[in-house]
Amino acid sequence: MKLASLKHGRDGKLIVVSDDLAWYADAGHIAPTLQAALDDWGRAEPALRNLAIDLEHGAIPRERFHEHDAAAPLPRAYQWADGSAYVNHVALVRQARGAAMPDSFWHDPLMYQGGSDGFLGPRDAIPLKDEAWGCDLEAEIVVVTGEVPLGASREQALAAILLVGLTNDVSLRNLIPGELAKGFGFFQSKPASAFSPVFVTPDALGDWWQGGKLHRTLMVDVNGTPFGRAQAGEDMTFDFGTLVAHAAKTRRLGAGTIIGSGTVSNRDSDGGPGKPIADGGVGYSCLAEVRTVETIRDGKPATGFLKAGDTVRIWAEDDHHRSIFGAIEQTVAAG
Amino acid sequence: MKLASLKHGRDGKLIVVSDDLAWYADAGHIAPTLQAALDDWGRAEPALRNLAIDLEHGAIPRERFHEHDAAAPLPRAYQWADGSAYVNHVALVRQARGAAMPDSFWHDPLMYQGGSDGFLGPRDAIPLKDEAWGCDLEAEIVVVTGEVPLGASREQALAAILLVGLTNDVSLRNLIPGELAKGFGFFQSKPASAFSPVFVTPDALGDWWQGGKLHRTLMVDVNGTPFGRAQAGEDMTFDFGTLVAHAAKTRRLGAGTIIGSGTVSNRDSDGGPGKPIADGGVGYSCLAEVRTVETIRDGKPATGFLKAGDTVRIWAEDDHHRSIFGAIEQTVAAG
Repeated sequence: MKLASLKHGRDGKLIVVSDDLAWYADAGHIAPTLQAALDDWGRAEPALRNLAIDLEHGAIPRERFHEHDAAAPLPRAYQWADGSAYVNHVALVRQARGAAMPDSFWHDPLMYQGGSDGFLGPRDAIPLKDEAWGCDLEAEIVVVTGEVPLGASREQALAAILLVGLTNDVSLRNLIPGELAKGFGFFQSKPASAFSPVFVTPDALGDWWQGGKLHRTLMVDVNGTPFGRAQAGEDMTFDFGTLVAHAAKTRRLGAGTIIGSGTVSNRDSDGGPGKPIADGGVGYSCLAEVRTVETIRDGKPATGFLKAGDTVRIWAEDDHHRSIFGAIEQTVAAG
Repeated sequence: MKLASLKHGRDGKLIVVSDDLAWYADAGHIAPTLQAALDDWGRAEPALRNLAIDLEHGAIPRERFHEHDAAAPLPRAYQWADGSAYVNHVALVRQARGAAMPDSFWHDPLMYQGGSDGFLGPRDAIPLKDEAWGCDLEAEIVVVTGEVPLGASREQALAAILLVGLTNDVSLRNLIPGELAKGFGFFQSKPASAFSPVFVTPDALGDWWQGGKLHRTLMVDVNGTPFGRAQAGEDMTFDFGTLVAHAAKTRRLGAGTIIGSGTVSNRDSDGGPGKPIADGGVGYSCLAEVRTVETIRDGKPATGFLKAGDTVRIWAEDDHHRSIFGAIEQTVAAG
C-alpha cells in the first residue's frame, strides 16, 4: 500500500496511491490526514488496504496522481530523528576534517533529534538565505513508526515500522562545525527536510525490505547529472530495527515518529571511499562526501555546495525503472 | 488568559481556566485542542478571550479545575527546542566536569532540539527504568509561539510569543557525557518533559513579563523541602525574543513551537555559585547544579540523583502566594 498527502492546509489530505503512482483515491472518509490514520492505525489500516485494493481494481472513482501536488506525506510530525547508520559516511567526513572517529561508532548508533514542525514537499524549493551556509543535500531512507514502548527490543521496533520512504535531509554544512563545537548537536544547520511523494508499507516492498533495510539503489542526480547510485541495503551498519530501538531506549515513541538512516554511503569495492559515477563508482548521496573524497585525494575539495538554481533529484526504482516512492525533485531558491 | 488541556485522547481537550485556577470552561466549541487553537490563533484567540471574560464574571457554566486532571497544555507538539539562557548554569556544570566554556557562550545561545512526540502531564510520574542513568529535574520557563518567519528579528520573535509556562525538563545526567562525546547532542539523555497545568498569555502576566523574561521566582521543592527559589528574570543572558530568533535563523517555526529557557540559575550575590536555601541562598533548579557546587567546594558531590519515590514540585506565585501556572508535582516511578 502506498500513501500520500495532497497539499491542503497544515497537514495535507490523505490519499491512497496506486502501485504505479498513476492514480489515487481520496481516503478522507477513513482518516483526514496521515497522522490521524497513524494515531488510529488498528482501525485505519485495514480500511486503507481495502481502498488500495479497490483502487488497483478500478472499482472506485480515481483521480490522476501528480507528484507535484503532493506535500510531504507527514507535512509536519511529532518526531523526526535521524541516525547515521552508514558509518562509512561518518568515518569519511570525520577523516576529511581531521577528527578521529571513536571505535564505539561501529556499535552504538549516532542519532540526532531533528526539527519536525514543518517539512518540504517533494517538489518544494529549498529556501536558502545565504549561500555561504554551505547548502548540501543528504539522500536517505526513512521509516515511520506506530507507538513504540520504552525499552523496546529490536524485534518490537521492527514490528512497529509501518511505512518506508525517502528524504532529502537538507544540511547547512558550514554551520555544522560551530554548532557541534558547542556540544548541543545540530539546530540551525538542519533546516526543513523534504520527503518522497509517497510512503510505502513494508509488505508492499516484498524482498526489497529485509532485515530492517531497504535493498534498492538510492538514485541521486544533481543538476541533471547522475551523482549517486548507492545500494541502500549495503554498508548499513545499523538496521532500522536497531535505530528505532535506540530511539526508544529511555522513552516511548509516539505514533508517526519518523526515523532516518542518515546519508546512504557505500564503500568502494576495494574498501576505500566510493568513486564518482563517471569513474565507474556508485557515487555519493551528499556533496560533503565527494568533497571529503576530493580532500583526502587532492588536499582540497573541488565540488561546491548548492547554489540558487541548482537542482536535486532523489528516487528509487523497481527492476523495470518504475519509481517506487516517487521522486524528490527540488530547486534551491535564493532568499 | 489561562489555557489548559484536560486529559483526553492524544491531544487533550482545550479549556479556559480562571485566573485563580479554581474554575474552567470548556472551549471545545472554539477549538478541540490547544494545537488547533494555535493553528488558527487569529480566529481562536478573541473567542477564547471572550470565554475567559465570561468565566471570570460567572456568566457561563463552569466546572471546578483540578490540576491532576490536566495533561501538558500541549500533550504532544511539533517542536520543542530548549535553550541554555542562564549561562551561569552552563559555566558551573562545565567547571565541575573540567570542560572549558568558550567565550562565545555569552553571546551565541546554546539550543538543542528536544523530543516533542509525548509530554508528561503536571502530575504524571517520571518513568525511570534505571536509577544508574542519573535522573535529574530541570526547572525552566517556556514559551509557545505562533508561526515565526525564517530570519525573524528579536522583535518579530517577541511578538510571536503567545503563551508562557513552566517545564520540568527531565534529564538523565549519566547518559549525557557519552552522548555529547558523540557530537550529535542529547537524545537518550532527554526523556519526556512535563509542563505546568496552565499556560498563560503574556498580557495576563502584566509587569512580570518584560523584555522577553518572566520576572518571578521559580519555586522548586524536592521531597517536600525548599530546593530552589531563583529569580527567573535575573541572570538570563538571552531573553526569549533572542532565543526564538536564534531558532528561526535558518528555518521558519511552526505554530505551537515550544522554546525553553534552560535551567534557571542565579549567581550568588558575591558573584560565585548560588548557596543552598538552608544557607540563605536562592538554591538551585536542578540537582546537577548543587552537585557541581559541592564538587567545586568539596571535591565530590554529596547530593544524589532522583530515585524511585522521590518527589519534585515546580511552580511560581503572585505576591499573595497564589499559583500562577499551577504546579508540576511529580513522583519518580521505577520501571
